Amino acid sequence: MRAVRFTDWKTKPSLKEVPKPTPGPGEVLLKVAGAGACHSDVAIYADFEAGIVHGLDPEYTLGHENSGWVEEVGEGVTGFTKGDAYLVFGPIGCGHCTACSRGQDTYCENAATNPYQGIGLGRDGGMAEYLTVPARNLIPLGDADPVAAAPLADAALTPYHAMKLSLPQLNKGGATALVIGLGGLGQIAVQIIKALTGATVIATDMKPEAMELAASRGAITVPGGEGQVEKIREITGGRGVDAIFDFVGIKPTIELGQQTMAQGGRLTVVGIAGGVVEWSFFTNPYEAVITNTYWGTIEDLHEVVKMYQAGQIVPDVQRFTMDQALEAYELLESGKLSARAVVMPNE
Amino acid sequence: MRAVRFTDWKTKPSLKEVPKPTPGPGEVLLKVAGAGACHSDVAIYADFEAGIVHGLDPEYTLGHENSGWVEEVGEGVTGFTKGDAYLVFGPIGCGHCTACSRGQDTYCENAATNPYQGIGLGRDGGMAEYLTVPARNLIPLGDADPVAAAPLADAALTPYHAMKLSLPQLNKGGATALVIGLGGLGQIAVQIIKALTGATVIATDMKPEAMELAASRGAITVPGGEGQVEKIREITGGRGVDAIFDFVGIKPTIELGQQTMAQGGRLTVVGIAGGVVEWSFFTNPYEAVITNTYWGTIEDLHEVVKMYQAGQIVPDVQRFTMDQALEAYELLESGKLSARAVVMPNE
Amino acid sequence: MRAVRFTDWKTKPSLKEVPKPTPGPGEVLLKVAGAGACHSDVAIYADFEAGIVHGLDPEYTLGHENSGWVEEVGEGVTGFTKGDAYLVFGPIGCGHCTACSRGQDTYCENAATNPYQGIGLGRDGGMAEYLTVPARNLIPLGDADPVAAAPLADAALTPYHAMKLSLPQLNKGGATALVIGLGGLGQIAVQIIKALTGATVIATDMKPEAMELAASRGAITVPGGEGQVEKIREITGGRGVDAIFDFVGIKPTIELGQQTMAQGGRLTVVGIAGGVVEWSFFTNPYEAVITNTYWGTIEDLHEVVKMYQAGQIVPDVQRFTMDQALEAYELLESGKLSARAVVMPNE
Amino acid sequence: MRAVRFTDWKTKPSLKEVPKPTPGPGEVLLKVAGAGACHSDVAIYADFEAGIVHGLDPEYTLGHENSGWVEEVGEGVTGFTKGDAYLVFGPIGCGHCTACSRGQDTYCENAATNPYQGIGLGRDGGMAEYLTVPARNLIPLGDADPVAAAPLADAALTPYHAMKLSLPQLNKGGATALVIGLGGLGQIAVQIIKALTGATVIATDMKPEAMELAASRGAITVPGGEGQVEKIREITGGRGVDAIFDFVGIKPTIELGQQTMAQGGRLTVVGIAGGVVEWSFFTNPYEAVITNTYWGTIEDLHEVVKMYQAGQIVPDVQRFTMDQALEAYELLESGKLSARAVVMPNE
Repeated sequence: MRAVRFTDWKTKPSLKEVPKPTPGPGEVLLKVAGAGACHSDVAIYADFEAGIVHGLDPEYTLGHENSGWVEEVGEGVTGFTKGDAYLVFGPIGCGHCTACSRGQDTYCENAATNPYQGIGLGRDGGMAEYLTVPARNLIPLGDADPVAAAPLADAALTPYHAMKLSLPQLNKGGATALVIGLGGLGQIAVQIIKALTGATVIATDMKPEAMELAASRGAITVPGGEGQVEKIREITGGRGVDAIFDFVGIKPTIELGQQTMAQGGRLTVVGIAGGVVEWSFFTNPYEAVITNTYWGTIEDLHEVVKMYQAGQIVPDVQRFTMDQALEAYELLESGKLSARAVVMPNE
Repeated sequence: MRAVRFTDWKTKPSLKEVPKPTPGPGEVLLKVAGAGACHSDVAIYADFEAGIVHGLDPEYTLGHENSGWVEEVGEGVTGFTKGDAYLVFGPIGCGHCTACSRGQDTYCENAATNPYQGIGLGRDGGMAEYLTVPARNLIPLGDADPVAAAPLADAALTPYHAMKLSLPQLNKGGATALVIGLGGLGQIAVQIIKALTGATVIATDMKPEAMELAASRGAITVPGGEGQVEKIREITGGRGVDAIFDFVGIKPTIELGQQTMAQGGRLTVVGIAGGVVEWSFFTNPYEAVITNTYWGTIEDLHEVVKMYQAGQIVPDVQRFTMDQALEAYELLESGKLSARAVVMPNE
Repeated sequence: MRAVRFTDWKTKPSLKEVPKPTPGPGEVLLKVAGAGACHSDVAIYADFEAGIVHGLDPEYTLGHENSGWVEEVGEGVTGFTKGDAYLVFGPIGCGHCTACSRGQDTYCENAATNPYQGIGLGRDGGMAEYLTVPARNLIPLGDADPVAAAPLADAALTPYHAMKLSLPQLNKGGATALVIGLGGLGQIAVQIIKALTGATVIATDMKPEAMELAASRGAITVPGGEGQVEKIREITGGRGVDAIFDFVGIKPTIELGQQTMAQGGRLTVVGIAGGVVEWSFFTNPYEAVITNTYWGTIEDLHEVVKMYQAGQIVPDVQRFTMDQALEAYELLESGKLSARAVVMPNE
Repeated sequence: MRAVRFTDWKTKPSLKEVPKPTPGPGEVLLKVAGAGACHSDVAIYADFEAGIVHGLDPEYTLGHENSGWVEEVGEGVTGFTKGDAYLVFGPIGCGHCTACSRGQDTYCENAATNPYQGIGLGRDGGMAEYLTVPARNLIPLGDADPVAAAPLADAALTPYHAMKLSLPQLNKGGATALVIGLGGLGQIAVQIIKALTGATVIATDMKPEAMELAASRGAITVPGGEGQVEKIREITGGRGVDAIFDFVGIKPTIELGQQTMAQGGRLTVVGIAGGVVEWSFFTNPYEAVITNTYWGTIEDLHEVVKMYQAGQIVPDVQRFTMDQALEAYELLESGKLSARAVVMPNE
């Protein structure tokens, strides 16, 4: 079968022929419906080097946002029907530490010795006709479109998890939220906050069209530049923002969060641009917290799928056939995609 | 000035002339904008007897859902401007126990020795041209209409508080809620849950028009009668309901809650009809809780007002002048009101 | 190897020779250190009948509270060293539903179609020289004694989980707890509450020696009989008890909980005696909840083991060799055990 | 009567004769039992200047950690008996904003226009024979010694509030805490954490005798200097510390917190030394938060008093008569106190 392979560091992916996999014990073989192309794939093949990151050594098939139809089950697996659609939770930890026991493989305590980080991250991913997945990592999609669902596995799960940790801040009359960065994750963040809370959602981005899309989903948009902090604080009645989500993570965006945060607020940095900011007792509003987070749990993804099924999350996707898969990555690299690229290997 | 007075047990209220009050130390004199007529007023003057309830002895002015404009402030009060509109938090406790310290006078530890239960509840209420209120019990309304706001002080505060205690059940993708009883409180409960959570809201009532109104606000309605439990469970995908609010409180409605509750769910009985039900380990879904609640806190009411200002709560009100005040209570008694009656003593 | 087998309904267990098991994919073979004998085993072999309970059909080896040393690992299992001691989480669900994904197999959504309920509960348990366990169900014990640890898997996990759900009630200065029933679970409950909270712990039981043991662990004991409710309320300064744990579950013990519960309190029924009580708005202290619970999560058991390693939980155990295993069950049935019976199949 | 007065900026306090106060409406007159001398008093009279801080303008009586016996009540105050002992909650806000409504006057939304910050902070404090206090700010002490209780109003309330916000981190088997700075607040923090949680408490300070005292209360002490971070992490089994309390707040202590914090941990800076540190996504353990806090709520102080009555908090105090009051401040300034100085104006 054909697969989009990460073959070497600092090397663009290739479309190669590989054997169709067989599901091992506890695994399910999926016929892939959709596989999302993500910026982190580009970082891995274009920027990283051997020896720097653990568990991502080439060669493997890309694709960590996947969905598909049950084709076959491995030894000991019950409860699956051929043809049923599932979304795939990507991270795979040791399976037996405290974090893995609660379905949060992203924080596996044995990550340093695991053979890979997850599906499409060191282990073969979904940019191929078939994919093997541990049964525990599968989320039933029911009748919902599996192709558009694929990006939920990362682009929705990550902001959903960040938002859940901010619920103490968001769940009250008069709450406010700020979403910084309106790419794939930010757009879904706006939808999740609008759907699950009554908060006024403020959104900001460099691209006017991204702000327009967020506005169409109910966000109040505030462009960057002079007066941005004041404008945001004004929308909050001067109190500052209760929950801030920074999907960029450079110094100016984190500082924007710090300057607009309410007393008791929460600033979650999700974007991995690595900005370094200052923190002090006297500049931090009392009891406001600053933190980061990474991906989410299996249970979170079950809840994300329920929102998708209810129409509360509508991912923006651009569909590509397998023939167009490498082109999708080219468009992603060049910033020319207007939505999440999803490759459909069986179309 | 004129006032609607509760003059004796088992006696209908009268419109009487009383002196205009003067604000004491720490108090504010309000020119009343609106005063809601509530079923509990009827219970007090029509059903209760001397010696049964503490702190409600006649004679006093009715009205525990009040709003008005600042007219004058008492000794030691600062920060109020004449003419500004405020909503009134009704309960008044001892002021110095633990519960009062957190603004939850409803649970005052010294209730048994307090002179009254609150404004319009033993102490003169808002069915008069002027009203005195401790400054701490005032919630700023800003530009929002104070007349329609009046019922929020009870008919919104009570379901809001009940809902906040149920947020652990409601705040996740795929959550479900059930509102039993679609009178004043139930209608606002539907609005609050829709606004503050992403839950699917199921609603039920004996009156088709009440269900239609709830449906227009986004609820899925299920009539009573055969198959009701099955229908409700089906809407939840068989899991049962995460958070149930019973605004009736008779045995059949509490049992409906018990039979439809999800594992880990929460059934809050708000209605005071006093139904008695059975509870056992084997009929209670694991970790589901059953509880009751009464009114709310001052901070809750600040948050309710923010929802009202944002248009998230729209109370259904029917306006009456002071001349029509006694008629409003007659209509309330006879069940002929289609919305909360608000008396405007200064119109 | 020898094993204590549940061979048929309404039949006492037998000591039989069975083949030494082989670990399947994802499993670990343990050389058993200790296997606790539990009242629920007796209920299964003495009281239950075919067709009533799912997943417990004979024949299988008893023992759902187990510990042991790693002997061999199955396919795909890494991170275990031969000879290291582990405690076993007993429940085994489908492995891929929401509940299983968070390590709460007790609430598996596919329980009705699972082949068994867990280890020693339909699947071969620890009353044998060797035992196979999914790697995910193993909790490292480090240097702590594995024999005394065995009962933690149920007799500590269950009260620990119940206590965690009651932390909002217990975690404050001046909190109070009531433990009803001071058998294996109740004694550990006293230890857990004393260690993890600052609450005053009140304890009650029919047996004076059980109360003495609880008193030696810091509980204030109150015997049953006249004046019990008043005595308990007096200890709480009249406020009532914040968190109540009923390890018996008959009508009188649940009612004792209802009568002593504080406003906002939590009454958790753990004991499965099936008592039926009445509930009404007017007898339930405001915002107090009544609920039940069953066993706990894998993550809970990791935390229980840390308490055991820190000396915060000291299980009361009575050790038996394999030759004495059937005698241990006889003593358990006749109520003549003064501590949890642990069978050591390899001694 | 005599009083310790703050008479001017950059000026040591004086012992002066002032009129005995009269309780206003809603107030209680206390005969002072004890008034604690606090470092922040020194900061105010020695370091601050006119125009820099709001609401602290001289002249007023010092003392914001106070206790006393009811002497007389003002208009409208009920429920107090002459001679009963009370502890005083010091902060006084506007009384009618959201924060004040929940008893958190420290975060009063109208602080900028309030006439003073609290009792002994702009308004006459407890370093005098008599003191007036709003009834709402009084916490009943029962039979507990009011003199030793005085410092609880700040030195216990502050760490208690910080600790409550950290309970999600602390309340589980195997949790760990780190207390940095073992002065008055730090010593009480150790006691509070030991009493209310099962956490392993690690403590550090520059003074060996402070560490010895903490060790006698159950803390594991780790001196500063080389290897401190490694030593602390080792005690936590390599996971890092779940909840860190920095009562110093200089750059090196905050950084110590950052370097020892566990994934999901909480670092609360309480000390106001104003250290500035760096924060970045890649150095912050996932989901760990850094925050600050200031004093506490009235309800917190009720709970603190219950811990004091139960013997769970034992303040270290050094008693001074009114004649020795200025000397107490001299000793405080020179760092020669080994415990909290409490002035007893009526001894």
